[in-house]
Amino acid sequence: MTVYRIDVSNRTVTKENLPNSYQLLGARGLVDSIIAAEVDPTCDPLGPKNKLVFGTGLFAGTYVPSSSRTSAGTKSPLTGGIKEGSAGGPAGLYLGKLGVKAIILEGAPKDDQWHYLKVDKDGAELLPASELVGLGCYEASEKLHKIHGKRCSIFVIGQAGEKKMLAANIAATDKEGVPTRQFGRGGVGAVMGAKKIKAVVIDGADAGYVQPLDKEAVKNASKKFAQGLLKNPVSGNALPKYGTAVLVNIINNVGALPTRNFSTGTFEEVNQISGEAMTELQTKRGGKVGHACTPGCIIRCSNIYVDKDGNEITGGFEYESICLLGSNLGIGDLDEIAYLNRLCDDYGLDTIEVGAAIGIAMEAGILPFGNFTAAKEAIQSIAQGDVLGRVLGQGAKVTGQVFGINRAPVVKGQAMAAYDPRGIKGMGAIYAVTPMGADHTAGPSCTTFIKAKPEEQVALAKEYHIKATALDNTGLCRFCSYSVFNDPDTLRALLDMIKGYYNIEVTAEDFWNWGKKILQVELDFNQKAGFTSEANRIPEFMHAEKLGPNGVVFDISNEELDSILKF
Amino acid sequence: MTVYRIDVSNRTVTKENLPNSYQLLGARGLVDSIIAAEVDPTCDPLGPKNKLVFGTGLFAGTYVPSSSRTSAGTKSPLTGGIKEGSAGGPAGLYLGKLGVKAIILEGAPKDDQWHYLKVDKDGAELLPASELVGLGCYEASEKLHKIHGKRCSIFVIGQAGEKKMLAANIAATDKEGVPTRQFGRGGVGAVMGAKKIKAVVIDGADAGYVQPLDKEAVKNASKKFAQGLLKNPVSGNALPKYGTAVLVNIINNVGALPTRNFSTGTFEEVNQISGEAMTELQTKRGGKVGHACTPGCIIRCSNIYVDKDGNEITGGFEYESICLLGSNLGIGDLDEIAYLNRLCDDYGLDTIEVGAAIGIAMEAGILPFGNFTAAKEAIQSIAQGDVLGRVLGQGAKVTGQVFGINRAPVVKGQAMAAYDPRGIKGMGAIYAVTPMGADHTAGPSCTTFIKAKPEEQVALAKEYHIKATALDNTGLCRFCSYSVFNDPDTLRALLDMIKGYYNIEVTAEDFWNWGKKILQVELDFNQKAGFTSEANRIPEFMHAEKLGPNGVVFDISNEELDSILKF
Repeated sequence: MTVYRIDVSNRTVTKENLPNSYQLLGARGLVDSIIAAEVDPTCDPLGPKNKLVFGTGLFAGTYVPSSSRTSAGTKSPLTGGIKEGSAGGPAGLYLGKLGVKAIILEGAPKDDQWHYLKVDKDGAELLPASELVGLGCYEASEKLHKIHGKRCSIFVIGQAGEKKMLAANIAATDKEGVPTRQFGRGGVGAVMGAKKIKAVVIDGADAGYVQPLDKEAVKNASKKFAQGLLKNPVSGNALPKYGTAVLVNIINNVGALPTRNFSTGTFEEVNQISGEAMTELQTKRGGKVGHACTPGCIIRCSNIYVDKDGNEITGGFEYESICLLGSNLGIGDLDEIAYLNRLCDDYGLDTIEVGAAIGIAMEAGILPFGNFTAAKEAIQSIAQGDVLGRVLGQGAKVTGQVFGINRAPVVKGQAMAAYDPRGIKGMGAIYAVTPMGADHTAGPSCTTFIKAKPEEQVALAKEYHIKATALDNTGLCRFCSYSVFNDPDTLRALLDMIKGYYNIEVTAEDFWNWGKKILQVELDFNQKAGFTSEANRIPEFMHAEKLGPNGVVFDISNEELDSILKF
Repeated sequence: MTVYRIDVSNRTVTKENLPNSYQLLGARGLVDSIIAAEVDPTCDPLGPKNKLVFGTGLFAGTYVPSSSRTSAGTKSPLTGGIKEGSAGGPAGLYLGKLGVKAIILEGAPKDDQWHYLKVDKDGAELLPASELVGLGCYEASEKLHKIHGKRCSIFVIGQAGEKKMLAANIAATDKEGVPTRQFGRGGVGAVMGAKKIKAVVIDGADAGYVQPLDKEAVKNASKKFAQGLLKNPVSGNALPKYGTAVLVNIINNVGALPTRNFSTGTFEEVNQISGEAMTELQTKRGGKVGHACTPGCIIRCSNIYVDKDGNEITGGFEYESICLLGSNLGIGDLDEIAYLNRLCDDYGLDTIEVGAAIGIAMEAGILPFGNFTAAKEAIQSIAQGDVLGRVLGQGAKVTGQVFGINRAPVVKGQAMAAYDPRGIKGMGAIYAVTPMGADHTAGPSCTTFIKAKPEEQVALAKEYHIKATALDNTGLCRFCSYSVFNDPDTLRALLDMIKGYYNIEVTAEDFWNWGKKILQVELDFNQKAGFTSEANRIPEFMHAEKLGPNGVVFDISNEELDSILKF
């Protein structure tokens, strides 16, 4: 397997072989291990010592369904700690087909010239990006598709990444070539901007699939694995039917839907922004739900959201974005929220971080709650780089500091996703302890916590924090978790696929232990970066201020939180 | 001795007695001990759990010269750690005369009403401050003087503190009743603002002096102490003659004068902003150098700076302010810098923090270097609370984050004073290790480092870090350090004065050990707040980027820095 190392200081591309010891590291495990081995945890995240690593999963380039997520790893400029985020889209598939396991961007540019990286069957090369600079992700990826063909997959940063903003993400194009999939958290786009790399173009659609060592075994296991995903009511029914937006009603019903900067847990206009409403509207208009972001995905949680005339506004329109750009801003119109989502995707902004930041600015009275035009102009101001935009573009923590609002819903400087920890306490525990900053993907699904009793939350957080990390090593979509975590047959099929591709026997115990090992790498990095357990806390206001309508506070003790990381 | 405890949540004033165990704690040692005992290190600094403590020194209310500094202690909203800052002016003398050792502001207001605290011989009471809100420190203190008489001393916050900005200081009035003395660092004014306390008025000028237990011994010791200060060439000659501005030429000559956001160490217009230039100009115009900020000060380092028509522009116009608002912004006109200093004093802003923040904004191209009007309007925008002002008002670190400048000269989030650590390395070591954030007063004078060899810097930092902390327990002006640190006779006189007032024998060893004990209290607090040794670091760019004209980097190793705190 190939590793491309790009030193932007002298613009060299070096082809290396993946060390044998990294063979069973994929996605999160892979990029974390490279970052931990090569990056000084105390370095300036936007300086020359930091690196940005893209890494594929264990089944990249294969026929295994829902397996082609790619991870981006770095020292986060937002949290100051290690960061791994993953994105869908076909890039992982293509990288796998090309035999590329990782791409490492390192060094600091010595001049103002921007470049993009082209990866294809002949190798990797840096090409000048002067005509792409200043463009949004939509226009930049269109231009790159014109040059390199529609079948390339692209990672690209927008104006936010170019300006090294802490809320900047890296967009990944979806099956249709539209930059709607996101490496969304922790300001990874700012690190790419600091390297002055505008995009990575992966031309690998026509390369051959990776063949298993044991074809028959993989064929059988793969079939069982797919069946496991499809028979699960969430991954097999709710997600393809409504997308992640199915959660809007669920979370509102338990009173944990962040509304007007996390000031209450239900939203009076919830019926207008629910997954059910979206599916009904898009079915009528000719949009698409049950859309696969990448070839071979059988869960198909994605969507293409069109306006009343049938023109695409946005895609990959997720629950998190609907809440943070909707209820959290007091905005209850799906078309409006979809447009805000489009702007974020275009400028290369994390919808969660920006939604939380604008919510704070609204609480501070800088902008009015519930006002679409104000929210739209605020996001536009980020791309334009005026002073308000510069503030919002640094995310929720900085926005809170600037506007004197100590109700900033952040952990380790990263904004919380769309689950108020007072209403779903186990999720709060996950936000608190994950080395990533408040991250909703670092444990079980929210519904696992919702169904459980209060006294079970901490134990569930502990168990699934490890399990989720193990799953993140595969590059499988996290929505495989519903069956992998709970159905022994699906897990068995997964282990059989590993055996079939790598000829290495991995027991279930080995598999879950991957989670512990990867977490330990991350925790060690963060400790060296200066983190203590005091970083693993939920903000004070959530302990003190009762969340309506249920009047709950976050009351998991610090000792219980700390116990989650003792494994 | 009396302690007034003011709970702003129910507006109660409680009179307590200072515990006996606190008898030999003064100023920094006193406020630190109260904060460490009463404040949760993990609390939100601007929330209800934080407290703001004013505490006087060991000789407050006595005839001991240069002894009436008051300390303010809190959990700093700027650094997130413990913070003690002290200010001159007669307040400490008056509090001492009234028998008041400490004032503790605690809780959080339940409504929007502002108050001020009045302390006099009859007690302490909260009075409505609705007519003071929104006023600058100059106008607010004038109004309070009209109500309570010219002879009161006042602590007051300006617009910055009201807005809970992280660069907000608390002003203290000088001998003439003008708010030119500052509790300057760490955003202590924001904590007072969070308590909605606009001012503390101390009406104690006419109370009797504190009498020693052994009058004769104190009389003799006090005389020797004064002689020690006066025979020292710095405290006896340079400071009264030129003020702290005497350092402008000295620091420029060694190439460590922060210039244009710490991008070089010498300033081409240095001759126009030196102490020598100021003294010549002010002597001609009828201003005043050799001014005592408080009755009984024999060092008289302060000044009253007048314009060409003889009207006062500012007072207490210090080296730090001249550099951070002058050379660091590329501004080389003393009248202009004095006006910026006046604005900061009026709005209640730390000149160091704001100068560093504006320097960063200038580097980012938001404002032009060298442009007085732009700098003036930037400071005015802080008071007005527009978005740019909100950014700058949070200090250098936040400004760097917002404008994407990683050349932020900060440690623990607090801006460095006017000594580039690359040019005066021992000062850099002090910036790095002091629990206070980059603080130039936490070690010896800069000249001690300048005179020493490179290999002596760390040992000097270690020795004087402890000694400076010990001296800070007395409430004596830090400029007593020139003789107390170096002249055994002056130290002996100081110990004799302690004996004469408290009838407790303190040996020289005991005295310096106070420093270790106080530092340990501070370090423990910060550790509980989540700090590790990684917080004790100089920013990466100062290790990598050579400082002109001498081409030096900061090269004291992390291990050497850590060794300073092993005592």
